[in-house]
This record gives sequence, C-alpha cells and structure tokens, in this order.
Amino acid sequence: MSEIAKTPQPPYYAVIFTSLRTEGEEGYGKMADLMGELASQQQGFLGVESVRDENGVGITVSYWDSPEAIQGWKEHALHRIAQEKGKSTWYKSFGLRIAKVERDRFFGE
Amino acid sequence: MSEIAKTPQPPYYAVIFTSLRTEGEEGYGKMADLMGELASQQQGFLGVESVRDENGVGITVSYWDSPEAIQGWKEHALHRIAQEKGKSTWYKSFGLRIAKVERDRFFGE
Repeated sequence: MSEIAKTPQPPYYAVIFTSLRTEGEEGYGKMADLMGELASQQQGFLGVESVRDENGVGITVSYWDSPEAIQGWKEHALHRIAQEKGKSTWYKSFGLRIAKVERDRFFGE
Repeated sequence: MSEIAKTPQPPYYAVIFTSLRTEGEEGYGKMADLMGELASQQQGFLGVESVRDENGVGITVSYWDSPEAIQGWKEHALHRIAQEKGKSTWYKSFGLRIAKVERDRFFGE
C-alpha cells in the first residue's frame, strides 16, 4: 500500500477515524488487516491512509466515491462484527467523521 | 492535547494532511510544534489530531469552522515559510485535502 492514497478528482468522500487503542493485542492486528482487505474490495472504495503511533493513537482515512458506498461498508456483516469488538475490546475511544472532499493537492512522487 | 478533537456539531471543515518525512530532523520538530501552537490561535480553528509512525508516515487532521479560516491559515506569513521548507527539506511527499464534515460520532471518554 502506498502511503498517500491515489484518489480521483474531487468531489469524493472521506471517513476520518481517529482512535485510541486499549492495551493488549486481543486479535486486533489480524482483524485490522482483514478489514483493510475487505474494505478495499467494496464497491466505491477509492483508497486508504492509516497511521498508528507508539502511544496507541491512530488515524485512518478511507476514501469513497459516495455516501452510499460508506453506508454499504458500515453495514457489511463482517465489518459489523469488528465494530462491536472495537467497542467492547480494542478502543478506549474513537471519533468518526464523514466528510466530502472538495479540493486536494499533492506534492512529490 | 487530547487525542480526539472536541469539535462542535457538523457542518465544519477538515484539512487532511498525509505526509512522508525525509530522513533527518532538520528542525522539523521545533517547527511542527510552533505551527501547531500558531494554528490553534487562528480564528476559526476548532481542533487538531496528529499521528506519525516510526516509518515517517504522518496524518494530521485539523478542523476549522469555514473555508475562509482554512484559507487564512494557509496564507499566514510564518506558515508560508514552513510550507516552503516542507517542500524543500522535510517532506518526500504529501497529500492535502479539504473536506466538509457532514456527520460525526464518538465513542468513549
């Protein structure tokens, strides 16, 4: 995965997911990989950028071509299971924001 | 700084800045701190979330009450100096996206 997503011309949509992990692995990495894989196969998926630091703070931004695509991924059966486990086990807290990208610019590579 | 920004009810605006650092410090940390401090003093600033991992990949999302506030910060004299140095020295590549946050939700704390 490239670090900076190759997205089309705006407008498109972003889901900004900022989270603080609990201590302990509890199967998180495996599920995160699986969800990344699954998300990328969904209709309307455009790309993803994801970073987590050594303090357990993470930001994942996924890009989508429409609100419907975001809603479809939210309701995906396996994703729902992951969401539940996220609240019960993996995350102390998170913020999730859905935003319409109006402009973008890029530098390098 | 709290990890997850305390933003008001949508709509508001997000600047999603995803970047890949070059090797070497070159005064980056000091300038990043200064820019964070300065940004938070700008009119229309609502909050910021920022993570960089050990591979030099970082995502910073800053939140603003209007496109005008974002434009004002973009044109701030000291910020312009930092932007130039970013391109000449600190970043291999970056993507910058301006997005209108339409919906959000939060969990925990």
